[in-house]
Amino acid sequence: MIDCRIILVHPRDPNNIGAVARAMKNFGFTDLVVVAPHPPVWAEVTAAVRAEDLLARARVVPTLSAAIEDRTLVIGTLDRTRVEEKQALFTPFDLSHDPRLATERVALVFGSEKHGLVNEDLSHCHRLMSIPTRPGCPSMNLGQAVAVCCYELVRESAQREIAPCPPTLATAGAVERALTLALETLRKIDFILPGNEPDLTRRLRATFMKFGMSHYDVEMLCGILSRINRLR
Amino acid sequence: MIDCRIILVHPRDPNNIGAVARAMKNFGFTDLVVVAPHPPVWAEVTAAVRAEDLLARARVVPTLSAAIEDRTLVIGTLDRTRVEEKQALFTPFDLSHDPRLATERVALVFGSEKHGLVNEDLSHCHRLMSIPTRPGCPSMNLGQAVAVCCYELVRESAQREIAPCPPTLATAGAVERALTLALETLRKIDFILPGNEPDLTRRLRATFMKFGMSHYDVEMLCGILSRINRLR
Repeated sequence: MIDCRIILVHPRDPNNIGAVARAMKNFGFTDLVVVAPHPPVWAEVTAAVRAEDLLARARVVPTLSAAIEDRTLVIGTLDRTRVEEKQALFTPFDLSHDPRLATERVALVFGSEKHGLVNEDLSHCHRLMSIPTRPGCPSMNLGQAVAVCCYELVRESAQREIAPCPPTLATAGAVERALTLALETLRKIDFILPGNEPDLTRRLRATFMKFGMSHYDVEMLCGILSRINRLR
Repeated sequence: MIDCRIILVHPRDPNNIGAVARAMKNFGFTDLVVVAPHPPVWAEVTAAVRAEDLLARARVVPTLSAAIEDRTLVIGTLDRTRVEEKQALFTPFDLSHDPRLATERVALVFGSEKHGLVNEDLSHCHRLMSIPTRPGCPSMNLGQAVAVCCYELVRESAQREIAPCPPTLATAGAVERALTLALETLRKIDFILPGNEPDLTRRLRATFMKFGMSHYDVEMLCGILSRINRLR
């Protein structure tokens, strides 16, 4: 597991802090540190949804220095439009592909909803990172920005962990049996014109195959066709 | 650009609708359709942050059928734990790598905060999709789930669009000039013991190179060292 602390500097909205905690929990992160929250905020946020344990363990510290003291790779996040020409810029994509992610003690630092991180905060960071949003609406909601970053950091490992689905498509043999029953139905209703049976069979088979029917779909179809074929 | 409509079925929280609109705008999506929102909700949400234009264009329709009527690839989202054993499951990763994303008229359908999509809703979908969250906390906040999906769909193209940064590291020659000044300083303070200058030079050069200093860093360092070297 990646050792990545999420740090919120001066958060203002208790809903956002709760949303941050929930997103962290969704993606398996547990280490939350809050730097000097606006005083009434921290008291209200204790009622955050489904991540109460994470919030209960969160530390509140007075300065960013205190929050990153034991970290070896500190990454400050900011709105893409605030980056100066000469600054190198990470994206979450770059970070998730950085081999240091597996070896360093990482901190991802997010600023307040109103101003983001100020330049003093950014000077504490090894790297700067922006989520590649559209120029017309670059600034993200705090809870959503944390969700996107947490998602990106575990994206590939989570994808690998998802249990491979059992085969869900019907076998070609089962589809062929349904086709046989369907052709019987078509003959019964005089849908097949003289000479066009081979062509129709081919087209119907291709259509059945293209549908990607499951075993259950084919079973249901065969049941329906069998009953039709038994009519009168 | 991907043609992807975001559909919210029976949303309950105006903050969530506003957050959805903002995340869509962050990643360049504009087509929002809301199915039968709880009545007071839609009136309150008109004050959503920084995505007022998108909300003003959003359509409200009475049924999911009406929302997807012109769509050719309808993807229903649900909490990973709700997926039945025999159902094939997409992830946002799979979807962003699906070539049909570029050619079809896609709809991403999200259920209400309380229940998600019900089975009746899911029967309208070609595919089901879950964000690969942790089993201990699988259910995501609606606004955050939409943000993660929108991010994933434009992730690779946005990464390509980011203007490559100009070179930010100092040239090797500039680092070497700083090294020369630094060695002069070390000689001045008698830090160099007899015989250890070659070794110290090598170690100091390696350290300077490893720092990844920018042109500005090296300039500042040279300025400081020059002043020290001019002392007494």
